[in-house]
Amino acid sequence: MTQANFGVVGMAVMGRNLALNVESRGYTVAIYNRSADKTEDVVASNPSKNLVPSYDVESFVKSIQTPRRIMLMVQAGPGTDATIQALLPHLDKGDILIDGGNTYFEDTIRRSKELANSGINFIGTGVSGGEKGALEGPSIMPGGQKEAYDLVADVLEEISAKAPQDGKPCVTYIGPDGAGHYVKMVHNGIEYGDMQLIAESYDLMQNLLGLDAAEMAEIFTEWNAGELDSYLIQITADILTRKDDEGQDGPIVDYILDAAGNKGTGKWTSQNALDLGVPLSLITESVFARYISTYKEERVHASKILPGVDYKYEGDKAELIEKIRQALYFSKIISYAQGFAQLRVASKENNWNLPFADIASIWRDGCIIRSQFLQKITDAYNREADLANLLLDEYFLDVTTKYQQAVRDIVTIAVQAGVPAPTFSAAITYYDSYRSADLPANLIQAQRDYFGAHTYQRKDKEGTFHYSWYDEK
Amino acid sequence: MTQANFGVVGMAVMGRNLALNVESRGYTVAIYNRSADKTEDVVASNPSKNLVPSYDVESFVKSIQTPRRIMLMVQAGPGTDATIQALLPHLDKGDILIDGGNTYFEDTIRRSKELANSGINFIGTGVSGGEKGALEGPSIMPGGQKEAYDLVADVLEEISAKAPQDGKPCVTYIGPDGAGHYVKMVHNGIEYGDMQLIAESYDLMQNLLGLDAAEMAEIFTEWNAGELDSYLIQITADILTRKDDEGQDGPIVDYILDAAGNKGTGKWTSQNALDLGVPLSLITESVFARYISTYKEERVHASKILPGVDYKYEGDKAELIEKIRQALYFSKIISYAQGFAQLRVASKENNWNLPFADIASIWRDGCIIRSQFLQKITDAYNREADLANLLLDEYFLDVTTKYQQAVRDIVTIAVQAGVPAPTFSAAITYYDSYRSADLPANLIQAQRDYFGAHTYQRKDKEGTFHYSWYDEK
Repeated sequence: MTQANFGVVGMAVMGRNLALNVESRGYTVAIYNRSADKTEDVVASNPSKNLVPSYDVESFVKSIQTPRRIMLMVQAGPGTDATIQALLPHLDKGDILIDGGNTYFEDTIRRSKELANSGINFIGTGVSGGEKGALEGPSIMPGGQKEAYDLVADVLEEISAKAPQDGKPCVTYIGPDGAGHYVKMVHNGIEYGDMQLIAESYDLMQNLLGLDAAEMAEIFTEWNAGELDSYLIQITADILTRKDDEGQDGPIVDYILDAAGNKGTGKWTSQNALDLGVPLSLITESVFARYISTYKEERVHASKILPGVDYKYEGDKAELIEKIRQALYFSKIISYAQGFAQLRVASKENNWNLPFADIASIWRDGCIIRSQFLQKITDAYNREADLANLLLDEYFLDVTTKYQQAVRDIVTIAVQAGVPAPTFSAAITYYDSYRSADLPANLIQAQRDYFGAHTYQRKDKEGTFHYSWYDEK
Repeated sequence: MTQANFGVVGMAVMGRNLALNVESRGYTVAIYNRSADKTEDVVASNPSKNLVPSYDVESFVKSIQTPRRIMLMVQAGPGTDATIQALLPHLDKGDILIDGGNTYFEDTIRRSKELANSGINFIGTGVSGGEKGALEGPSIMPGGQKEAYDLVADVLEEISAKAPQDGKPCVTYIGPDGAGHYVKMVHNGIEYGDMQLIAESYDLMQNLLGLDAAEMAEIFTEWNAGELDSYLIQITADILTRKDDEGQDGPIVDYILDAAGNKGTGKWTSQNALDLGVPLSLITESVFARYISTYKEERVHASKILPGVDYKYEGDKAELIEKIRQALYFSKIISYAQGFAQLRVASKENNWNLPFADIASIWRDGCIIRSQFLQKITDAYNREADLANLLLDEYFLDVTTKYQQAVRDIVTIAVQAGVPAPTFSAAITYYDSYRSADLPANLIQAQRDYFGAHTYQRKDKEGTFHYSWYDEK
């Protein structure tokens, strides 16, 4: 019987494509799925590939060379625990389990602890790139024991995307236990922000200038040739060129319901930022924007009752489009600055020692947020490894200085026109808060000390103080 | 030995004041604290009061008439569990424990379940009003078994604040298990929003008009005589009149550090909104505003590097002040609309059947967010008990229609002037999103279907669809 070099559990589309990706690099891949039909389907559809199918866990494990490298591509949550429990009795010390699901990082920390004494190595890794990326080369964010990572690094490097700038594999060791899944979570939060920023740009062009999908496709195509060069801008341009395929005339985008779902990773990012004391306003507004989009019926009802404003944009069309472009780039910088600030706090909190330059570097290709822009972030952290905030880096300082007026003007126009631009607004608000030596939180401290005796701190000396608010003045 | 009618565990300031409040209504109150010194201090400071001190749990329990009514005023968290465990062996079936701490509602749900078979009744109640409110009459939000509530209703009604409008007690049965603590949590979230809105108003007047504390005290005093009449506006006016008491010349507020702490309840509210799919943008921005305020050193550093804008307000002073007032009232309406929308979703999710009109009614006095404004919300829910959103009520529709231009103008000025106004911005953004029949989330659905095959819904027919993005065009 042929011994496989690598195993994959879970033959849904991501697992299947990842297995085929590994096989394509010259490996023999053992595959297993809880229900046999999916495994049979993969084998039938790929007759000439070096796949070793098994239909029970024991045979699957036995079909792999030791130390075994087994990647779990199953639904995150209880399914992952069940899969680990099913595999465990058949594994040998030194085997390596790699959870490639969209797992919440706290679960990965828990599983790392649970497996710590078993002699089984455990890696929790983010995998981004969708089904196409899984097949052709995703961005991979692995966390776990460094020694275990070294035993799988060759395979992960081979299957990963290679950055166009320097050919480097889009995978690196992220850090202990939950670090990989944490970084993937923030990646997804940033993805929410990027998508909402693009949606607001589209909305403003549509509402203020009356542009149609074809015209906007051209604009996004043009933007994709410059600073905004990225996968999400590129697919936006592509989407806007597509005709409906359900029998209607005109572009597909005009027939899609404006109610966006989510799978919870953006929410996790925001909730964790709230736990860490990190002001992650832009990504959080993008999560809330998805939420309010789902209140479609209520919005349609409200639109008939709540009056808007009379506003017509009378300015120059090209000028407005350029300002939207600048506002989009500016806001993207703010979003990543917030996301990397969160990574920095999480790194300290968990003793992960996260490699910020490498993280930006492995996001340059393969993943959904891939872009030229991530090279700029890589450069920034290469200039200063412990940069407190991306806004302080020379490149980002230069861009935000040049573009801040554009975002101010776009937010002004949006607010006066009654077109909601929650993430553009959050961007400029954060920028202005961050560069404010003084904020009005002194008044909030005074209020808290007044009604709750929470004490306050002073500008002129150290210590905590309480003012006798209730004594005679 | 005198038998007490009521017991209070925990003699920190809130517990002590609550015990004295109960005593002042003609009850004999048993008191107990884990460390004896606090109890001794209460007794020594209140020699003529009907207090029955105990220095061990058993004596404390025995000193109370059955069915015992015992209020826990201990630090929320493990301390509450430890106190319950210490009391349990000495209690009889039918006794009632009332947790009056700032407990996370999920803990109250858990404790209700744990105690369900013991025969001990459990009420989790929010208590708002600070130390002064606890003594003189707080707003009380009890959740638990209705039968148990009926046995304590007389005491809670007597010690609560009475609304100035109609003399009604600021307490009502909120709903089963965690409902009371949940409503208190959202109360606190709203409190964060109110405080940040006031802080932004203060900041804009200071920055755009150069007003000093005394001038602003007059303005807040004037505002407090109108629509904005509320405790937080009133204490803001008072705070701004106070001189420093640590040896500096000038108003105390100018010496307080602009770094505001928090005790987590605003964060909980935001995190729960994220779980429930509720767009709670304004309160969340107020939480983030506190967070960024704590980055004082980083902000001071950034203020020297990141350039601002050249802007001088040249308009009429009185007009700007009036617009800020209108923006503040408009934004306050948005904040409460979001908070009550969250209560509505939570009520359905947990089968709590929350009484919205009563909740607004018991917040009219005693608590930190007390205001005339809450009468308007009471009225709105009395007009329509299951109102989807406060913005749809006739009163709020009228105000927001009149004031929307003011908030647009204030956000415009703030953004152009570089003064951060995160909650004012969130207010107008939410208003415009909520009244938009169409949002750009159709593009987000398209992107998700493109890169992740997440499928999409259509405007013209039911069902879920997938577009063949990767086939030849």
